[in-house]
Amino acid sequence: MGTEENGDARRGSWATDQEADMVGEEEEEKEKDGMVVEMSQMSRHHRRRKTNTKETEEGEGGERSEEKAMSIERAFEGKRVPTWREQLTLRALVVSFFLSVMLSIIVTKLNLTTGIIPSLNVAAGLLGFFFIKTWTKALEKTGLLRLPFTRQENTVIQTCCVAAYGIAFSGGFGNYLFGMSGRIANQASEANNEQNIKDPKLGWMIGFLFAVSFLGLFSVVPLRKIMIIDYKLIYPSGTATAFLINGFHTPEGAKKAKKQVRALGKFFAFSFLWGFFQWFYTAGDDCGFAAFPTLGLKAYENKFFFDFSATYVGVGMICPYIVNISLLLGGILSWGIMWPLIGNMKGSWYPADIPSSSLHSLQGYRVFIAIAMILGDGLYNFLKVLSRTMSSIISIMRSQGSTSTLPVSDNGHPITTTTIISFDDQRRIEIFLKDQIPKSVAYGGYVVVASISIATLPHIFPQLKWYYVLVSYIFAPVLAFGNAYGFGLTDWSLATAYGKLAIFLIGAWAGASHGGVLAGLAACGVMMSIVATASDLMQDFKTGYLTLASPRSMFVSQIIGTAMGCVIAPCVFWLFYKAFNELGLPNSEYPAPNALIFRNIAILGVDGFSSLPKHCLTLCCIFFAAAILINLIRDLSPKKVARFIPLPMAMAIPFYIGSYFAIDMCVGSLILFVWEKINKTQADAFGPAVASGLICGHGMWTLPESLLSLANVKPPICMKFLSRE
Amino acid sequence: MGTEENGDARRGSWATDQEADMVGEEEEEKEKDGMVVEMSQMSRHHRRRKTNTKETEEGEGGERSEEKAMSIERAFEGKRVPTWREQLTLRALVVSFFLSVMLSIIVTKLNLTTGIIPSLNVAAGLLGFFFIKTWTKALEKTGLLRLPFTRQENTVIQTCCVAAYGIAFSGGFGNYLFGMSGRIANQASEANNEQNIKDPKLGWMIGFLFAVSFLGLFSVVPLRKIMIIDYKLIYPSGTATAFLINGFHTPEGAKKAKKQVRALGKFFAFSFLWGFFQWFYTAGDDCGFAAFPTLGLKAYENKFFFDFSATYVGVGMICPYIVNISLLLGGILSWGIMWPLIGNMKGSWYPADIPSSSLHSLQGYRVFIAIAMILGDGLYNFLKVLSRTMSSIISIMRSQGSTSTLPVSDNGHPITTTTIISFDDQRRIEIFLKDQIPKSVAYGGYVVVASISIATLPHIFPQLKWYYVLVSYIFAPVLAFGNAYGFGLTDWSLATAYGKLAIFLIGAWAGASHGGVLAGLAACGVMMSIVATASDLMQDFKTGYLTLASPRSMFVSQIIGTAMGCVIAPCVFWLFYKAFNELGLPNSEYPAPNALIFRNIAILGVDGFSSLPKHCLTLCCIFFAAAILINLIRDLSPKKVARFIPLPMAMAIPFYIGSYFAIDMCVGSLILFVWEKINKTQADAFGPAVASGLICGHGMWTLPESLLSLANVKPPICMKFLSRE
Repeated sequence: MGTEENGDARRGSWATDQEADMVGEEEEEKEKDGMVVEMSQMSRHHRRRKTNTKETEEGEGGERSEEKAMSIERAFEGKRVPTWREQLTLRALVVSFFLSVMLSIIVTKLNLTTGIIPSLNVAAGLLGFFFIKTWTKALEKTGLLRLPFTRQENTVIQTCCVAAYGIAFSGGFGNYLFGMSGRIANQASEANNEQNIKDPKLGWMIGFLFAVSFLGLFSVVPLRKIMIIDYKLIYPSGTATAFLINGFHTPEGAKKAKKQVRALGKFFAFSFLWGFFQWFYTAGDDCGFAAFPTLGLKAYENKFFFDFSATYVGVGMICPYIVNISLLLGGILSWGIMWPLIGNMKGSWYPADIPSSSLHSLQGYRVFIAIAMILGDGLYNFLKVLSRTMSSIISIMRSQGSTSTLPVSDNGHPITTTTIISFDDQRRIEIFLKDQIPKSVAYGGYVVVASISIATLPHIFPQLKWYYVLVSYIFAPVLAFGNAYGFGLTDWSLATAYGKLAIFLIGAWAGASHGGVLAGLAACGVMMSIVATASDLMQDFKTGYLTLASPRSMFVSQIIGTAMGCVIAPCVFWLFYKAFNELGLPNSEYPAPNALIFRNIAILGVDGFSSLPKHCLTLCCIFFAAAILINLIRDLSPKKVARFIPLPMAMAIPFYIGSYFAIDMCVGSLILFVWEKINKTQADAFGPAVASGLICGHGMWTLPESLLSLANVKPPICMKFLSRE
Repeated sequence: MGTEENGDARRGSWATDQEADMVGEEEEEKEKDGMVVEMSQMSRHHRRRKTNTKETEEGEGGERSEEKAMSIERAFEGKRVPTWREQLTLRALVVSFFLSVMLSIIVTKLNLTTGIIPSLNVAAGLLGFFFIKTWTKALEKTGLLRLPFTRQENTVIQTCCVAAYGIAFSGGFGNYLFGMSGRIANQASEANNEQNIKDPKLGWMIGFLFAVSFLGLFSVVPLRKIMIIDYKLIYPSGTATAFLINGFHTPEGAKKAKKQVRALGKFFAFSFLWGFFQWFYTAGDDCGFAAFPTLGLKAYENKFFFDFSATYVGVGMICPYIVNISLLLGGILSWGIMWPLIGNMKGSWYPADIPSSSLHSLQGYRVFIAIAMILGDGLYNFLKVLSRTMSSIISIMRSQGSTSTLPVSDNGHPITTTTIISFDDQRRIEIFLKDQIPKSVAYGGYVVVASISIATLPHIFPQLKWYYVLVSYIFAPVLAFGNAYGFGLTDWSLATAYGKLAIFLIGAWAGASHGGVLAGLAACGVMMSIVATASDLMQDFKTGYLTLASPRSMFVSQIIGTAMGCVIAPCVFWLFYKAFNELGLPNSEYPAPNALIFRNIAILGVDGFSSLPKHCLTLCCIFFAAAILINLIRDLSPKKVARFIPLPMAMAIPFYIGSYFAIDMCVGSLILFVWEKINKTQADAFGPAVASGLICGHGMWTLPESLLSLANVKPPICMKFLSRE
């Protein structure tokens, strides 16, 4: 395990007490009533911020003057925000297209060789900037430039690219989709009959991707305000990218802002060089700093180590303390206590002779318990959001006719607008709420696309009955919400884990005799596409929020990007498939290691729940209930206590991944903590810039690293850690 | 190679332009004429400081107020400096005795096992502090305390311990002295006849050590003012220890000073923990951070790598830039260019079939060229000091009767006393010049001890003729000066290299047929003892200078410590020798690896210069001349140019050792440089404290590390660096 989920390993976070009131939806409805509602919404939002465990981007020190000095949007004050149509320029889409092709080639190649895919978001944003900047500079000299290059346009490119190259991963060319092929089936011991085989063809692949890839977009669009403004989820990578883009476009003369940009630049360079330095020592498996048994070999075996990742240290600096502590707690609970204990039961609770990547061994406990806990948390929050929305709609309907537009706080007192709201937030919320995506488009879109999908998919895969798809689409929004929420909180997207769940559930439902293996793999595609795109979109909304890009242009750009990806990704894969005959064969240049793993999961999945390792289902139920219970306690206990109660969503992530990134993130927390002790003002002003630099620098390094890998340049040294014996 | 010289690997430096006028001796003579001479001396000294490439300990920023704020001695202003007799307390000597026994056991054990001996100076100072502090605290409670514990007393303990346990190394129980024994002789192919064998016996060992160990003390005592005050050599380890001792004794209420102490403490802890952390990864040879091929494997083979040593980074921060640059230049010249080129001549310039540790292979070039260059520099400076002293004495004699006491600067203009001298320097110089050691004692002592030695040694070793000893003692002061000077500059004492030179020269002179092997080894002892104790003493003078300890108490404490060592060290060795029968046998628990190496050098040495590898002597002459030439150019060119001309002494050290520590030191320089760019005041105020913390923290870690090694506790992990192939 541990390789295929890196594909969507991007990180995110959270800066508000989630128990804070979650009305919110009403303003959207009353948008045209003007700024009164807006302002009161902002003020209550700000009130909420005041109780945060940690201040977010601007690090307002509480004093007005300080906050003002650190404001990013003050630097941009003189710049007009282009309309959403102006943000969607042709040149941006052209650049996006070429970047998407490039990134898709990189992702497909890595998918088929190692199966480990780094996040290339930062590279997309940065390359987009350089291409357009060069282009506009050139035009400027000839005097032909009409539209100046704005940060919003930059965000549009980034969003479009991420959507497009995301398909190269979520399209499953390295895992579920290629796992359907005869070539992979022949390597497995069972189910290599015709019923469970579907060889890749360009036509059905494109059709399939078009049928499944848009659902995710529509499923979370209505939730964007709740997640970005109310929950104030951080999406660390998205925030870092936004910092980078803002940094590039900071107008001349903005001194304070320039200082932040310099801090960002310095740590960007450091992180990039550090990534480069680390690369030299990674010849071979288990080599290099990422395999450094910092806490001893025994702890390393249980995934407890500091892996010197600048990215996660940066993420830890952006995430609130409680998220990092929750992650660490989860890691200790799972890898420190539970897995070793269950591991002792090897041969009794689960068979001793199956590979460790099988869901029937310890890995099964990891995946299913993690998902159970995430589902519990996701469901709880989904229902909470739903009930609050409902009740607020009802209360608005009741008070219709009354002139009071002041919302009411949790305890019934109206909130006054005297509390100070940061200029940055004010501006961002204003822009974010200006261009709406009508609810009808979102809900309607979902229903239409789902219907098309339900109608088409059984034609592509006869084994996948229409009602399987229908059921998937009924539950998908909850899962998509859960994943987007967890992604925003911890920067980890567990799309593959959801995919595995789908393999298991649908595969078992179909049964071995009815092509359950193929049905399971297809269902995996359906599920992975939805949850992966949903979290990507939400992350882009966050980036857009911080760069004052219109949500509407984000959404359109995502749709265009997804459409591009649905064509580009299969074509790139098709090229590889046609060009290399040994594609997918073990020990070849392109072994596509995850394809066989996914197929094996499907083969075992068709046996149903009875095939799960012992007590796994019981444990899942316990953790599902625990997640809901912990959330309830958080919501019901007073704020003072609640802020020390860990978040189940964050606790669940290391169950599946391991604790090493939690340790990195806690190191980031520690650095910030010490920095705040030494110089609070400085830490608040430069902390997020430093963190963004760390994240983006390493993010950018992944591009040359991938290119080196494509060019077959191997690092020269292996830093190996051997036991004394 | 590269193991046995670690035994005296302590580091030191330099903060003045050496071309500055070197009158100086006269004040000592005219001491009783009062402060007028003193002050003018100080002012000219200060003038010299102003032109330094780098400010030294206090980092006076040029502004009076700033300098005052950072003064260490201001914090101690209220404290009376005890007289030199008061500094030499009985309790200090008792504690020193027990510490010396402990440290001698550690050193002897390491000498006989790995041959790698860390510097334990810091441990001596720190343990001394804790023992006496506990003792005085206890007495204070019972109300019986008469004498409070002062920093001067602490320095006395440190000095006494260093002198005593130093003998455990310079006594050669792991190399030359044990190399005389029959057990080692039987492992060599030649010269294992009775004439060249002398088995250890407690009696003659103690006698031999008493005969040779005091010469070093007397030889450099008259130069202490020149080296400490005029040349302002830094002796980084000595300076760091002084900072530590000052830190321990800083009076309550001294806020600024306490801040520095806190910075020191923080980096002390960091460096200690970093040493501890590194230890875990050093199971096996070529393991751990000290074998990190930071610049690639090829560079690592040529000893170019950053070895993550906190000590050397700290040393680099204390040493002036020009020293670090010179070291790096020397490293590039030797390990980067010359040795690889000469290595290509293997089989032509020198035989290909001899071990790499032999002086007849590449190692010969390294040792002899390094020594030639050091001798050139040492001789030049020795003669310069001598001539200046002479001419100033003559000029004083001429101007006798004239009332003017203002000295004359280089260009003939009298120096006014208006230049500001830092309070710290003023106070330190005052104390340092107060208690004199009469010249007659120094010179007389040298002659008396040398005579006794010349008379006794031939009785112990009939092969060592009295005139060999006489000749050694005529040249020894120059070598001792050179080593103390280089030690002060770079913190590297090359005692073993001088020892090897003596083996070679005296061995060849005696000839194979007249017991040349034994004569060579005995001469090695004579030479090593002198140069090692000379540099130790000078380092202690520096520590004493910075802690306001009297030079007289330092000197007496050194003599007592040396006497202790002459008894303790042979006794400890005798215990080991009697207790372990396999002592000195290869593959045993105590292989004493360097003993055989030294004996082999002696065996080959008796063949004389003709046995040197090809062109080695020519190259030595070239580098000897080059060292003198570079010094001449430095002295004759204008200051602006001179400060960019490298120091031959510093360049020569990496010839022998390798460049890795030079890279560490340059990293230290770089850190300081960047820090100064960011915040000059802060860097000046805290730089030396941070550097001292780094040096002392790792220095302290060597004690538990040695204890772990004694207890046979091995680190658990080996961090190994393998080539991709």
